[in-house]
Amino acid sequence: MSLPETHKVVRLYPPSHDIRVEIVPTPKIEHADDAIVRIIIAGLCGSDLHAYRGHDKFANSFVCGHEFAGEVVALGESYSETAAALGRPPLYATLKVGDKVVAPFTSSCSECHFCRMGFTGRCEKCLLFGSQRLSGGQAQYVRVPLAGGTLFKIPPDNVKTEEDITQWKHISNASLVLMADILPTGLFAATQLLQHPNILPALKSKPFPVSLYEGNQKAAVGANIIPLTDVDKQLTLAVIGLGPVGLCAIVSLLEQLESNKSQSTRIVAIDLLESRRTKAAEIVKKIGGVPGNGLFKTATIDEGKKIVAEWTGGLGVNAAIEIVGHNDALELAFELIRPFGVITSVGVHQNHQVPLIGKGLYDKNVSLVFGRCPVRTMFPFALELLLKRQDIFGDVGQETSLIDRVVSIDEAAESYVMFDKGLCGKVLFDPWK
Amino acid sequence: MSLPETHKVVRLYPPSHDIRVEIVPTPKIEHADDAIVRIIIAGLCGSDLHAYRGHDKFANSFVCGHEFAGEVVALGESYSETAAALGRPPLYATLKVGDKVVAPFTSSCSECHFCRMGFTGRCEKCLLFGSQRLSGGQAQYVRVPLAGGTLFKIPPDNVKTEEDITQWKHISNASLVLMADILPTGLFAATQLLQHPNILPALKSKPFPVSLYEGNQKAAVGANIIPLTDVDKQLTLAVIGLGPVGLCAIVSLLEQLESNKSQSTRIVAIDLLESRRTKAAEIVKKIGGVPGNGLFKTATIDEGKKIVAEWTGGLGVNAAIEIVGHNDALELAFELIRPFGVITSVGVHQNHQVPLIGKGLYDKNVSLVFGRCPVRTMFPFALELLLKRQDIFGDVGQETSLIDRVVSIDEAAESYVMFDKGLCGKVLFDPWK
Repeated sequence: MSLPETHKVVRLYPPSHDIRVEIVPTPKIEHADDAIVRIIIAGLCGSDLHAYRGHDKFANSFVCGHEFAGEVVALGESYSETAAALGRPPLYATLKVGDKVVAPFTSSCSECHFCRMGFTGRCEKCLLFGSQRLSGGQAQYVRVPLAGGTLFKIPPDNVKTEEDITQWKHISNASLVLMADILPTGLFAATQLLQHPNILPALKSKPFPVSLYEGNQKAAVGANIIPLTDVDKQLTLAVIGLGPVGLCAIVSLLEQLESNKSQSTRIVAIDLLESRRTKAAEIVKKIGGVPGNGLFKTATIDEGKKIVAEWTGGLGVNAAIEIVGHNDALELAFELIRPFGVITSVGVHQNHQVPLIGKGLYDKNVSLVFGRCPVRTMFPFALELLLKRQDIFGDVGQETSLIDRVVSIDEAAESYVMFDKGLCGKVLFDPWK
Repeated sequence: MSLPETHKVVRLYPPSHDIRVEIVPTPKIEHADDAIVRIIIAGLCGSDLHAYRGHDKFANSFVCGHEFAGEVVALGESYSETAAALGRPPLYATLKVGDKVVAPFTSSCSECHFCRMGFTGRCEKCLLFGSQRLSGGQAQYVRVPLAGGTLFKIPPDNVKTEEDITQWKHISNASLVLMADILPTGLFAATQLLQHPNILPALKSKPFPVSLYEGNQKAAVGANIIPLTDVDKQLTLAVIGLGPVGLCAIVSLLEQLESNKSQSTRIVAIDLLESRRTKAAEIVKKIGGVPGNGLFKTATIDEGKKIVAEWTGGLGVNAAIEIVGHNDALELAFELIRPFGVITSVGVHQNHQVPLIGKGLYDKNVSLVFGRCPVRTMFPFALELLLKRQDIFGDVGQETSLIDRVVSIDEAAESYVMFDKGLCGKVLFDPWK
């Protein structure tokens, strides 16, 4: 396929607030591992605003956007059947021009130590799309470095039957934009919570430390084990921050708790904004509530504290997900958890000292898990969820959608202004409209 | 057995530094769940010094000591075969006068929510031995509340064969004092590290998140999995603080890594004091080094940083155990770990704000696990280790022993003075000498 000489992009100029839609040369293969992707749809994300507002300083203009879905239109020389024999990621052997793909918000090689471990968000070669170092996806075309490690093919190569392929075709393009960050990050937060060793006793009906009991019947004799009661196995969880990631974290929790539905989990979802609380309640209602007739309540901060106290007789929640990135949210999470509780924080924290006291952390036996989602790692699991939950995520404009509107790329400047001022929800750009 | 009217105790008087050996009435059964234990040997612990130095304020004198081993001499009415039918902890049915026992440094019921979960260090009814609320073990007799939940019988009820019983008889009484806190806490620190979801990829040769991959072959196809290399599976660990708990943490790590000896773990053990570093090296040498021809090095802080940089090419350690309880140690642990690294902190932190920055925690994807060891929960596992490693822990006075000397209880006042001034190592009291 021969590509046009030029394409349309959204470019941000320093120092801030200066968005221009421009015609520039179409990106080309620069390295053997590159792919060129024709953008189908691209997202405007809250974190695009860091540079837009001038909070992140930058000297040179760049093409914006780190959320996109598209179609492969050109591939570098690395893409061939011999790639598999070289031990490279499978896509180097199977990716073809014409394939539909999504990308994480950063490139990741899938080949370095961190990628092999599954910690792809800390890939040694990772570059952020929509930065000075790598042009973004708010454009008609984008160059994807290390594309065989970075991209995910839709449907993936293991989807072979006609029935399965048909099902994958029903994934809406708009919903695919959630894959770059929002849905994997929500799923990551939920997974880190549910896999934590301090949470396993409730899920596995075995006392802490489950890993030592497994396969060690001898030790159990002296262990004074009294069987866990239904109350012990009932998880009470808090989600703090009900933006798109928080909503995806809730959906992910409900999904993963399906296999544990004998216990009635209770979830309190906390946010200052009524509109966000309402959307959370609508989504949970549409899913059919918490598995096993569990409870779900939305709350302001004060309401949240009261609900937790009522539900747990003052003990506190087993775990809290913190998606805000502010000290207040971290302190609230600390206050809400019970001893041996877990805080999963995917909020993007800044240069503040964390407000926690050493004695408090010791006395409450607190576990904390911080950091950025390894999006590429979470892709297969997040896409299964996206496919299953098209009723929630699929249609733009429906009650539960996380996307407010799809506009022409020509409306980028106005859209940034409105989004920055909170006058609209999540906006997607169609670069061909 | 009829008990004497009076017994000898070590009592601390306010405001500080006032240790007196006194003759007082022998404790009696006060509650049906109580046991009276005749002390065989009791420990003087660093944390006894908090009150001794007047840092922990107290208004009334009390009998000191929270580390002891002894023999049951009286039991309350709860102890009978019907206890098992009531669903109470097994010891209420099996404990007999004459049994040898050890206790954690706090009582724990084994019956509340936290105890059932295995979080016995946060038992709702826990009382610290050697405090104003509960007389301690530096005495000839001690009353143990909730003894069927608190005590551990030596040997445990599952040890039945002659050969096994003989083996258990070889556990030295002095080493049993390590059970109250030191060995379980070291084992707890090691266990929390090795069971952490961010460490499992190295141990299980599967990428993060291992919990999602287990039993989900479908997802693995789109996951771009490149097999983990030997380098990925090679754990590099730091232990910060080589007091008795740090040494037990190292022994526990080596023990638990036995089952993973195909990989050559590297451990750097950091302390300011040369004498502690020397003892750590002696212990590891006696055990036969790190399983799988791994590496073990002791180091000062600066040496430790250099060793980690050399070993890991600047990446940092996978995890660090922090046993100091100071901010400096926590900062060092943060500095030493690589992205997605784990910090297990069993150091007793005070009222300081932790020195960590939100952005640093996010950017490095840091996991932290804080808090007090649930000693009662760790007992069966720690005792197995104590039994297996009598060559390390057994004999007082040998190179590797964590105990410096055993003295008569009459020497308590002088011993507190010397221990407080660092003029001797760990002291045990024999109340019958």
